[in-house]
Amino acid sequence: MLLPHLTRAAPHLRAASTAATLAAALKAGDALRSRRRRFTEDDVAAYAGVSGDRNPVHLDDAFARGTGGFQRGRVVHGMLVASLFPALIASHFPGAVYASQSLKFAAPVYVGDEVVAQVQALHIKATGARHIVKFATKCFMDDEETLVIDGEAMAFLPTLQLIVEAIK
Amino acid sequence: MLLPHLTRAAPHLRAASTAATLAAALKAGDALRSRRRRFTEDDVAAYAGVSGDRNPVHLDDAFARGTGGFQRGRVVHGMLVASLFPALIASHFPGAVYASQSLKFAAPVYVGDEVVAQVQALHIKATGARHIVKFATKCFMDDEETLVIDGEAMAFLPTLQLIVEAIK
Repeated sequence: MLLPHLTRAAPHLRAASTAATLAAALKAGDALRSRRRRFTEDDVAAYAGVSGDRNPVHLDDAFARGTGGFQRGRVVHGMLVASLFPALIASHFPGAVYASQSLKFAAPVYVGDEVVAQVQALHIKATGARHIVKFATKCFMDDEETLVIDGEAMAFLPTLQLIVEAIK
Repeated sequence: MLLPHLTRAAPHLRAASTAATLAAALKAGDALRSRRRRFTEDDVAAYAGVSGDRNPVHLDDAFARGTGGFQRGRVVHGMLVASLFPALIASHFPGAVYASQSLKFAAPVYVGDEVVAQVQALHIKATGARHIVKFATKCFMDDEETLVIDGEAMAFLPTLQLIVEAIK
């Protein structure tokens, strides 16, 4: 079964576009994709403000190239890129509660780069009224070949019925 | 040796206040503490904006109490609280580059709660011109008894000389 933003064990398959909002039950193997996201200078500045992380590798091109060793200059905060995972899960499962997340920052994301986040359900277990789901969490450059973040998350979902938002 | 914001293998020891900026070399066992941080409604709204994570457990008190099961209402995004770790490391080591982070969200942080982040160097290894440091990363409620996030981070530091900012 293919649904917008939902591919089943087929990470590189693009889902068809539709205007409808559908519901389906999450199963092990299902993968959810985010929309493409380009982090702008303003995003990085806003995140630096709210997080307090003013590391010059994120704010100063010359410093990022020199001390940071980032050839193309300022990089997006890794934890800002990683925020795409809980955002993606919550967009399909409002009320999801994050239990854990591991993150390996595999490649830099530069200001202006477009990325796509993907979460794939690895294991689902009922626990009381909720379900706890282990997700593989990956973020790719828009070319879908460069893995920029790899890891796993555990989240409590209030239901396995997911909201499938239409890709506009 | 005790320095502002730096306690050596003494996580609960408060460092003395001073107006000076000092430098010292990080050693295994050293712990760095953040200032107390209270996440406000505005912080949560700003983070929801830049991350795209509009999970109603962060934005809607009634939803957070009901579906979310959070007795005191809206909770701060866990990944926003976790941003204190790279922010703390970068404040002492500008140019630090994050390699990995694991996070276990142990207890909720409600809007308005004050927290303190702590990173403790577990292992330091020279690698080319940099050092790679494994940190234990913990975040506590201001009472310092409730652990809200537990985990580990790996970061490349351009130098082990740390900037010790005065506590005002």
